[in-house]
Amino acid sequence: MQRALSVSRMTGNRSTFPEWYQAVVREADLAENSPVRGMMIIKPWGYGVWEEIQRDLDRRIKETGHVNAYFPLLIPLSFFAKEAEHVEGFAKEMAVVTHHRLRAVDGKLEVDPDAKLEEPLIVRPTSETIIADAFQRWIKSHRDLPLLINQWANVVRWEMRTRLFLRTSEFLWQEGHTAHVDEADARAETMRMLEVYRALSEDVLAMPVIAGEKPENERFPGAVATYSIEAMMQDGKALQAGTSHYLGQNFAHSQNIRFQSAAGELEYCHTTSWGVSTRLIGGVIMTHGDDDGLRLPPAIAPRQMVIVPILRDKPEDAEVLAYSESLASALQAQTALGERVRVLLDKRGARSADKRWEWVRRGAPIIVEIGPRDAAAGQVTYMRRDKLRDGEKIASTAVPRDTFLAAAPGILAEIQANLFAEAKAQLDSNIRGDIRTFDQLAEHFGAAVDEDEGSVFKGWVRAPWSKPTGAALDAIDERLKALKLTLRNIPLDQRPVSGPCLFTGEPAVEEVLIARAY
Amino acid sequence: MQRALSVSRMTGNRSTFPEWYQAVVREADLAENSPVRGMMIIKPWGYGVWEEIQRDLDRRIKETGHVNAYFPLLIPLSFFAKEAEHVEGFAKEMAVVTHHRLRAVDGKLEVDPDAKLEEPLIVRPTSETIIADAFQRWIKSHRDLPLLINQWANVVRWEMRTRLFLRTSEFLWQEGHTAHVDEADARAETMRMLEVYRALSEDVLAMPVIAGEKPENERFPGAVATYSIEAMMQDGKALQAGTSHYLGQNFAHSQNIRFQSAAGELEYCHTTSWGVSTRLIGGVIMTHGDDDGLRLPPAIAPRQMVIVPILRDKPEDAEVLAYSESLASALQAQTALGERVRVLLDKRGARSADKRWEWVRRGAPIIVEIGPRDAAAGQVTYMRRDKLRDGEKIASTAVPRDTFLAAAPGILAEIQANLFAEAKAQLDSNIRGDIRTFDQLAEHFGAAVDEDEGSVFKGWVRAPWSKPTGAALDAIDERLKALKLTLRNIPLDQRPVSGPCLFTGEPAVEEVLIARAY
Repeated sequence: MQRALSVSRMTGNRSTFPEWYQAVVREADLAENSPVRGMMIIKPWGYGVWEEIQRDLDRRIKETGHVNAYFPLLIPLSFFAKEAEHVEGFAKEMAVVTHHRLRAVDGKLEVDPDAKLEEPLIVRPTSETIIADAFQRWIKSHRDLPLLINQWANVVRWEMRTRLFLRTSEFLWQEGHTAHVDEADARAETMRMLEVYRALSEDVLAMPVIAGEKPENERFPGAVATYSIEAMMQDGKALQAGTSHYLGQNFAHSQNIRFQSAAGELEYCHTTSWGVSTRLIGGVIMTHGDDDGLRLPPAIAPRQMVIVPILRDKPEDAEVLAYSESLASALQAQTALGERVRVLLDKRGARSADKRWEWVRRGAPIIVEIGPRDAAAGQVTYMRRDKLRDGEKIASTAVPRDTFLAAAPGILAEIQANLFAEAKAQLDSNIRGDIRTFDQLAEHFGAAVDEDEGSVFKGWVRAPWSKPTGAALDAIDERLKALKLTLRNIPLDQRPVSGPCLFTGEPAVEEVLIARAY
Repeated sequence: MQRALSVSRMTGNRSTFPEWYQAVVREADLAENSPVRGMMIIKPWGYGVWEEIQRDLDRRIKETGHVNAYFPLLIPLSFFAKEAEHVEGFAKEMAVVTHHRLRAVDGKLEVDPDAKLEEPLIVRPTSETIIADAFQRWIKSHRDLPLLINQWANVVRWEMRTRLFLRTSEFLWQEGHTAHVDEADARAETMRMLEVYRALSEDVLAMPVIAGEKPENERFPGAVATYSIEAMMQDGKALQAGTSHYLGQNFAHSQNIRFQSAAGELEYCHTTSWGVSTRLIGGVIMTHGDDDGLRLPPAIAPRQMVIVPILRDKPEDAEVLAYSESLASALQAQTALGERVRVLLDKRGARSADKRWEWVRRGAPIIVEIGPRDAAAGQVTYMRRDKLRDGEKIASTAVPRDTFLAAAPGILAEIQANLFAEAKAQLDSNIRGDIRTFDQLAEHFGAAVDEDEGSVFKGWVRAPWSKPTGAALDAIDERLKALKLTLRNIPLDQRPVSGPCLFTGEPAVEEVLIARAY
């Protein structure tokens, strides 16, 4: 059977998921490694996906009352020292700027030793400290609160083992930073943005998630509470797709963010932060991709429909092109999923079969092929990327032009719903809720596997636990680590629990999610 | 007379333009200096202006066939060495990353000496080299051309003397990078993007410009030809607002960007690059600001109309608010300048007079004040920021609600046109075309003035010249420098010239623009 990709997600008993992932990123032309270790080049099709995500999320961020601003890329080293816990918990792998000039010596460029900075500057790994510093200047009275700021930015974390989109030394993200008069308001903000992320993930990326609170040991450094959305990839691993933090008064204390209350008292603010990144694109690939390449939910496809005219250097070409152009215009004038339909007429001078396969690999939701017969008969032949195959065959449908025009917006909505339903079924049916002991857990997940080899699909486990903290939690973490497992989150959506904790044997108080993770 | 700003552009015989500029940036709440020398924080109102500019320009960039992509922030030092001329001409003031880790010693953070990078990395001052490297991998055949890429990014140039928006160590910009089969196609691209910048500047920022080619000594390092748009600020200085470069085969040679031609030959591409930055916001301020603060062209105003309800903690407040809310909805449903009207209802609990002055300083195009009498009479009282005063008085107009609703989109369009017309008249009437000798030039501009003192308005001079090159041009440059003058560009729109060159006395071949500049 002809496949658009040379690598399959699974071969026999062996998962080839990591190779498959790389092949999709490459063959869908999403991104590539750059000459700078761990930093990626996001190619136009991949960046187009990011632009769609960004546009949608930006609207949601603004609708919830936030405004965008921009803070410096470089942060003085001393700022990190201010927030002790933040520093302690944070990986210290950061890009450090120490000089501000080059010099040419014998026609060779080198760092000018005379241009050493008095204080090293850090390329932001996140902007809590420098934004807190601004908040401390901006906030004077309770009338200035809540202060609801978002930033779209690049950040750098010096990663040792990188993987395109999932873990790169530089990535693009948004980081929200807000300040509030009290805990209740800050906690409400934290949950509001978690819900924005859930809605973005499920309604736009068609990627079902479980929202919950991170256990104590997985909190963001300096946070009082960290919440995440976790998505299940097709290899059964979890991807943390977004986080929202209630920071309490920790950053307010260390950075002196105070306000005069209505009663005239000086009080410390309660702050939050929350972010999602280009990692989401990795999640989309591993949620929806198949052995033919990427499948894009229409809501984030840079082009939702691609028209490939079948040209043969013959006189009929003109008619085929004219027919295709008219079809493209008619489609562009339509609305689907609340927006103008995004259409591409691919007139490049390549073989139409090659072009078709290219769009299959890139995951365009609907691929239309127009040949002389279609033009003559006034019909449209199209493929749905979510239902590409009928057994061994490619499933293409020919319908009258008007029928297609009338149906197209609905088909896009259907593809969006379909991709979500598929992924939701996968998630729901692969969370084991019947595992009650650590031995059962170990047996279920089997021996630890090397990450590069990939693990055979095991899904997640949702188990009752007694919510231990401190050293007891660390001990559990160690035991899980030996199985390459982690605690993902404590789902917000809890069921009544009974019986003992899977780890401690004490009475369980709630359920926690356990999985291998990216 | 009450003014929204404490500083005027000019006091008696003395220009206080630089202080005035700083006051507008501060009082309009656009940006502020950060704790990192030379790097600014772009505050929400300023960033909102950038978002509007970005949105409009991004559409124009895409309509001309370009796609966005993203390249690494950090560039290996060796990449700069590849393009020798590029390095030579480029200021070597760049931020250099030399280490990738911090360590904590005795609870103090410091750079970890064990984490020195093998090769220093430069925070991109511009991305020609790293994008050329990608082009060299991406381009194989003439079928891959033209390759039309744009990037929205932050860049860093270590500036010694900085001024918010105009010259900052970090700024935001877009940089277009394209590759073509031949000179004609690349030159057409260069001019196309120059025209996009002219249209953006004039039609969106309402900032008239003169487009032209830079003289040889002002070319971008490595370029064969550099074009710019130059705008006249209210102190008579020129602001280079955008540049477009035809790079010939220079970057293609140094980075080996080759393609197989239709005839089967390996040929070097012709490349271009072009960019505009957050500097444009500085241009908007200095073009349209007045002694009351900023005046924003409606096309880039984050909020085009601001409604200030006059609330007095009295029972009528509810009616005033309800009336204001209904008005805001009705306005938001309207279209002006081709887009939904952007309306803000400012419900903050401050005095309405303070809020009004705040929006005056921030330059909201239309400010509506609704008091109990307006609500009761079904009328709207509004001010136009472009015609704020009638002599000493603030000019406000009261009209029936329906009249205002019907007129509002037209008023916004009128303000847009009005701001452009004002600035255009200022530009057109302040270019001297009658200066024929260097002595006259020196006399016209008078003694050199210290930049921080500001220069009293002198406008520009457009003079015939013989287009000298090399050492002759350098000598002219030196003579001009003594007068704090520079050659701005050779306007595309030339008139027939006759007589001698102002500098050399040789027969003139064209006219060149001379001005003090930012």
